[in-house]
Amino acid sequence: MTLRQLLGIDLPIIQAPMAGVQGSALAIAVSNEGALGSLPCAVFDVETIRKELSVIRARTSKPFNLNFFCHVQPDVDDAREARWHATLAPYFAEFGIDPSSIRPGPGRKAFGAEHAEVIEEFRPPIVSFHFGLPAAPLVSRVKDTGAKILASATTVEEARWLEANGADVIIAQGVEAGGHRGLFLTEDIATQVGTFSLVPQVLKAVKVPVVAAGGIADANGVAAAMALGAAGVQVGTAYLLCPEVSTTALHRAALQGPTAHTTALTNLFTGRSARGIVNRLMRELGYMNAAAPRFPLATAAIAPLRAKAESLGSGDFSPLWSGQNTTGCKEIPAAMLTRELARGLPAPK
Amino acid sequence: MTLRQLLGIDLPIIQAPMAGVQGSALAIAVSNEGALGSLPCAVFDVETIRKELSVIRARTSKPFNLNFFCHVQPDVDDAREARWHATLAPYFAEFGIDPSSIRPGPGRKAFGAEHAEVIEEFRPPIVSFHFGLPAAPLVSRVKDTGAKILASATTVEEARWLEANGADVIIAQGVEAGGHRGLFLTEDIATQVGTFSLVPQVLKAVKVPVVAAGGIADANGVAAAMALGAAGVQVGTAYLLCPEVSTTALHRAALQGPTAHTTALTNLFTGRSARGIVNRLMRELGYMNAAAPRFPLATAAIAPLRAKAESLGSGDFSPLWSGQNTTGCKEIPAAMLTRELARGLPAPK
Repeated sequence: MTLRQLLGIDLPIIQAPMAGVQGSALAIAVSNEGALGSLPCAVFDVETIRKELSVIRARTSKPFNLNFFCHVQPDVDDAREARWHATLAPYFAEFGIDPSSIRPGPGRKAFGAEHAEVIEEFRPPIVSFHFGLPAAPLVSRVKDTGAKILASATTVEEARWLEANGADVIIAQGVEAGGHRGLFLTEDIATQVGTFSLVPQVLKAVKVPVVAAGGIADANGVAAAMALGAAGVQVGTAYLLCPEVSTTALHRAALQGPTAHTTALTNLFTGRSARGIVNRLMRELGYMNAAAPRFPLATAAIAPLRAKAESLGSGDFSPLWSGQNTTGCKEIPAAMLTRELARGLPAPK
Repeated sequence: MTLRQLLGIDLPIIQAPMAGVQGSALAIAVSNEGALGSLPCAVFDVETIRKELSVIRARTSKPFNLNFFCHVQPDVDDAREARWHATLAPYFAEFGIDPSSIRPGPGRKAFGAEHAEVIEEFRPPIVSFHFGLPAAPLVSRVKDTGAKILASATTVEEARWLEANGADVIIAQGVEAGGHRGLFLTEDIATQVGTFSLVPQVLKAVKVPVVAAGGIADANGVAAAMALGAAGVQVGTAYLLCPEVSTTALHRAALQGPTAHTTALTNLFTGRSARGIVNRLMRELGYMNAAAPRFPLATAAIAPLRAKAESLGSGDFSPLWSGQNTTGCKEIPAAMLTRELARGLPAPK
């Protein structure tokens, strides 16, 4: 069965869920074009998810994808928090921010029973997970609704694990990809694999369809991924300048600036490795810093610095999420961008 | 002008020079098949280069490529050597090796006047460089022979620099590639770019033909790279099992083993970042270790450990150079492998 048939879509192009910069508008635009729009739910509370789902249902009859993170929420480690606050103290001093203004918060919500309820109620055709899969009973509840499950693998081992644990489609997330790495069986970012290598490796390792992600930004990239043997592609960064996306002006400028191609994986902004354009905080603290609290707790202490810097017109403390390839970013509607990407697809058989 | 026309080859496939595991035999087999065979000269003295060139001239009339490193040979830093020997001392003790058996040596030769003389004498049609380019007068001497110059870029900045300084073709070396990274304007391996992203970036930045390297291992990979817009491909790892290559039995076993897809960039074996299959030394000392002497001086102290371990059947101390994608490695003659790769090329126009 092709990915088109499995997911009920016309174009095997998945709009990568990008938590924090998009809601239903982007998903609707992409789905209405025949590709697969995605709603990232990790930064939404359940009521917001319900509202966004209602909007999606009202504005498209096409398949769409609900995306969740499924990390394990860590306990707060007071010693580590103290180390992290001490690391950041010079910046709080520089901006005259009272460190007591740091508000603890979950940052990102992991998939749980409340989300399974929403899925049972709204029955989205497709659900995708990042950082592995939820516990088996939750996976069963999702599958019982008839939803197809997509999940991200960054290694051969992760791909095999996801297939064995219920994923219907594997997204092979090459190291080029922007935002959070989906890794969950390893924490070693030095052995993470580029898209050109990961896709053939995963194709050899699993029987389910394999979607290529990471570095795919235009029709040539789509054609290349399909030539590699992928069943489809997932594209995120290229959509970041579309009007349906709430990318900040600072972030948009960085994506179009002269250093957009200098990105790195960093744990400074959330506690997990995620790819963004290198900025001052990353240069000064190191891209990966052992003092950063575990995901998603690192987010809290950065928030006031980020807010202050952004109010001064600076992206020095902002996560400027981006894949390595921004050559396909265009300030055009998402539907138009989707059509341009689709030119790289082989003719349907 | 196409890469075929510029280099006088039938197939725009370059066999990546792999110093230490190959000589003229592989280059001849590949060139006779219509692709571009390469002779890596970095580990050869000038007399050996002359001998190998005579063999090549006798056995093929097709174009071939002479490859050189062009690092700056560092002075020996006694303090750093002492730190490195101390770091390795437990291993010398474990194997009962006398550390005084460490023989200092250059490890790899940088391109110099003696090499320019060989080029003026033998007039190879193509010369390629790694780690930038030699000094301008040496580049001029090479160009004056009529040789076309190929050089590796790992970033947009390096590609622009190479074009401005005389390269006729840029090899965009994605982070997936095995062996030494060609980087020379940066030492930051965390911002190195995957092939899917680097090729479109470099295509936008330069006017000379761009060859894709890194992760390309079979006909699908070749088709994908060409779809991305590359003028040709460079393939190394896939040739490592060919009979014309002197890959050791240990190295061959690792390339076909269950952890072949777990590679990392490491400076332990030579002092510069190079990609190999993760082994004991890399796990225990860290892939990148600040104590390692500068390239190529780190090689000397590892040599006795490597020799001893290999004599015991262990690759724990060997550089198991490999790209991230070993799925295309086959124990078939290089000519046959070249023909298989060529199936991924678009029909010539």
